Amino acid sequence: MVGKKGGISKEITPQSVDFSRWYIDTIKKADLMDYTPVRGCIVFKPDGYELWERIQQAMDRRFKETGHRNAYFPMLIPETFFEKEKEHIEGFSPELPWVTEAAGEKLEERLALRPTSETMIGHMYSQWIQSYRDLPVLINQWANVFRWEKRTLPFLRTSEFLWQEGHTAHATEEEAREETLQMLEIYREVIEEELAIPLFVGQKTPSEKFAGAIDTYSVEAMMKDGKSVQAGTSHYMGTNFAKGFEIKYLDKENQLQYVHTTSWGTSTRLIGSMIMVHGDDHGLVLPPRVAPTQVVMIPVGPSKTRDLVVEKMHHLYEQLKASDIRVRMDLRDETPGWKFNEWEMRGVPIRIELGPRDLEQNQAILARRDTGEKLPVSIEQLAAQVKEQLEAIQKDLFQRALQFQSEHMHLQINTLEQLHQHLEISEQENQVPGWVLAGWCGDDECEAKIKQETRFTTRNIPFQSPVEKEVCIHCGQQAKHTVWFARSY
Amino acid sequence: MVGKKGGISKEITPQSVDFSRWYIDTIKKADLMDYTPVRGCIVFKPDGYELWERIQQAMDRRFKETGHRNAYFPMLIPETFFEKEKEHIEGFSPELPWVTEAAGEKLEERLALRPTSETMIGHMYSQWIQSYRDLPVLINQWANVFRWEKRTLPFLRTSEFLWQEGHTAHATEEEAREETLQMLEIYREVIEEELAIPLFVGQKTPSEKFAGAIDTYSVEAMMKDGKSVQAGTSHYMGTNFAKGFEIKYLDKENQLQYVHTTSWGTSTRLIGSMIMVHGDDHGLVLPPRVAPTQVVMIPVGPSKTRDLVVEKMHHLYEQLKASDIRVRMDLRDETPGWKFNEWEMRGVPIRIELGPRDLEQNQAILARRDTGEKLPVSIEQLAAQVKEQLEAIQKDLFQRALQFQSEHMHLQINTLEQLHQHLEISEQENQVPGWVLAGWCGDDECEAKIKQETRFTTRNIPFQSPVEKEVCIHCGQQAKHTVWFARSY
Repeated sequence: MVGKKGGISKEITPQSVDFSRWYIDTIKKADLMDYTPVRGCIVFKPDGYELWERIQQAMDRRFKETGHRNAYFPMLIPETFFEKEKEHIEGFSPELPWVTEAAGEKLEERLALRPTSETMIGHMYSQWIQSYRDLPVLINQWANVFRWEKRTLPFLRTSEFLWQEGHTAHATEEEAREETLQMLEIYREVIEEELAIPLFVGQKTPSEKFAGAIDTYSVEAMMKDGKSVQAGTSHYMGTNFAKGFEIKYLDKENQLQYVHTTSWGTSTRLIGSMIMVHGDDHGLVLPPRVAPTQVVMIPVGPSKTRDLVVEKMHHLYEQLKASDIRVRMDLRDETPGWKFNEWEMRGVPIRIELGPRDLEQNQAILARRDTGEKLPVSIEQLAAQVKEQLEAIQKDLFQRALQFQSEHMHLQINTLEQLHQHLEISEQENQVPGWVLAGWCGDDECEAKIKQETRFTTRNIPFQSPVEKEVCIHCGQQAKHTVWFARSY
Repeated sequence: MVGKKGGISKEITPQSVDFSRWYIDTIKKADLMDYTPVRGCIVFKPDGYELWERIQQAMDRRFKETGHRNAYFPMLIPETFFEKEKEHIEGFSPELPWVTEAAGEKLEERLALRPTSETMIGHMYSQWIQSYRDLPVLINQWANVFRWEKRTLPFLRTSEFLWQEGHTAHATEEEAREETLQMLEIYREVIEEELAIPLFVGQKTPSEKFAGAIDTYSVEAMMKDGKSVQAGTSHYMGTNFAKGFEIKYLDKENQLQYVHTTSWGTSTRLIGSMIMVHGDDHGLVLPPRVAPTQVVMIPVGPSKTRDLVVEKMHHLYEQLKASDIRVRMDLRDETPGWKFNEWEMRGVPIRIELGPRDLEQNQAILARRDTGEKLPVSIEQLAAQVKEQLEAIQKDLFQRALQFQSEHMHLQINTLEQLHQHLEISEQENQVPGWVLAGWCGDDECEAKIKQETRFTTRNIPFQSPVEKEVCIHCGQQAKHTVWFARSY
């Protein structure tokens, strides 16, 4: 609950003072999650979980439209499975929790809690795939996964999280590469259209690739503190896992071939991204398409007219509901000001105020969470106006985030010295350092050095770069790629 | 894949020969699941998982309509949590798998893989509930759970399975008891209406209660081998967990009170039940409402007319799709007979055959999986007829299962000797022993003795018993309850 006195809640730290504290304050007070006694594991409370349910629906529909089906594989993975793909175990083994005992007995082989399912699924595919007629295999899984990381942050990095992982097997490299990019495009579409988060779409550098992949592609989002969140990834594995797990098929010429596999995933970190992209000092700002509550109706005015107002409000509430708007009334015994704060903090896109004067004028007041604008709306037009405004808010949130992005993209930094200067100035002026588009020679060491000195890492090599850079920001040699650099979650 | 020669697949063991083998043959060949190298853990393959998705949708809609919301709690549960409710730990500790190491270090406290979440959720509710205004709390969770049981059976008893678990907290016993029965009724509705499984609704005896509950209610289903599956349970916990986890609220008189809690669950064992209730010697028989494919279209006749037939079939396929029928065409290069067997084995409710003679007569042949009936249907009427037949099949499956039940309910067995005789005759004649309605004095020892001698256990005390029994089937003393006894999965 927010403070009961009205005005901006004093309990949410302003973003400019401490963005991390703002984030934690907001998700706690907006009742999206809670901490638990298990290290790094959170509860996804109903409003937090419903955001995930809406993301799931949007993704799942598109997965099915493109021919994928869901399945469910065991969560526990035998230790020996990890050893079959060398890079994969190096990448994941430092973070694995292990089951070593069950039903009172020590297990003969340790079982890992899945950090991702390439190994288990690779094993099963090797049983299921015999001939080219069995291909492609297009499967997705909705599941919980575990990565026992040192530092955790609710939604963005938790020991257990929820995600979807697609795993496909194809006869040819070409087809597998098409699949990889198709799924990246689905991610872009859902995240931009439903979550109103504009994305940077591109390819990861080799050092930032998925453990075991040939190529990794990502969609990356810029948070309001200028840091990046990797919002979704899609991997072309080549025949790496096929070789590790002996996934082979007889082709039309009766020759045994390895399949080409892909995997692709998005997770509950999308919830955290949405909050950090749209939220403000009053709390959450939720995109209408995924908001659990799209409209809250609050009676105002003196108590003697309240019965009349509430009666009319019930009527309007039913109208909005009948128009498939997710609406609720707040009839609690609190002041309107207190309620306004509460629902602002929870990020509800539209507030409708109704008082005795509104009744006289046959109108209601529609207030937008994102801009604070208040519009008087004729009661006959209410449902139509609400729908229109919800659409407008969805678009405006995206446009505003896009605007923020372009204001924090730095295209003129060409040397490490310039980057250092930029960071110094940002710090002195308490400015968001943002992202830097820079040339890179392709050498891992240059990349590592930049990271070490600035904590800026390569986000991705954009498919469409606003400019092409000619020299490496670190060594000054000829640039092989133009790359986005940023700090990241 | 079934044998390619047509006729009944020789690879499915007939039910009368060995029901368990029939079950395993069927689920493997119908491609619903696969075994994995992890003890007792299966893969839910796409057709198996889609059955679960449809059950989920039917349940979830009703949960939400009755005011519940979904959330997600950590899968790992600290060992100390289990010690807070004595009966609970006694019930579950023999089956728990434990995480003892993570990220290369031994954990200070072992973490159990949840077998159910009363303890974790109880702990969280104790943080969230302060006042009567916070009540009721109505939360459901869709999750994976673990019970490391000795003997496993796909879908019915696996080390890891999928389920939903509702957990609610209420101010009063009355309200909590109402919730318990409301959710049992939702289970009855979904299972009878969507899965076409008629149920026995009643209360569990104390020895068969959930570990920690005051009262457990169940819906039980009779399989075709006469055994029972407990298809769903709903528990009134009283204040047992509230006391274990200190879940208290200030009532309107400002007095601290313990909440009354409930929990209720159904799981992927519903998939197994559906198969064992409706399946036959040709394989699966799926109720149309949950069948992944409701209609399969197969071209027949000589190859020279095939192009013409397939062209028309595409047209009809689009019509059925537009009518929201889950339809597919099988245009593979196999004989019609082979395809008929394949789709019968997979339990698809309706097959549509189309050949050159049908084209001449402007008709298609509609074949029902459940009865084998073939109906010529005019092409103009096809979508309407298919819809009608799907409804008819759904109803007929339920009625046929109800008929089977009533033929295998034994109401005239009043002594243990009569039960022994009944079992002997059943065995000699290779008959399903079915269920026995008998009196019970209420003594745990009588119940245990019956189980020990006959492997018949109490299923539940029916809310509405066809007859009331006067004496205990074991001791002959006055009966306190009339109880269903059966063998069970």
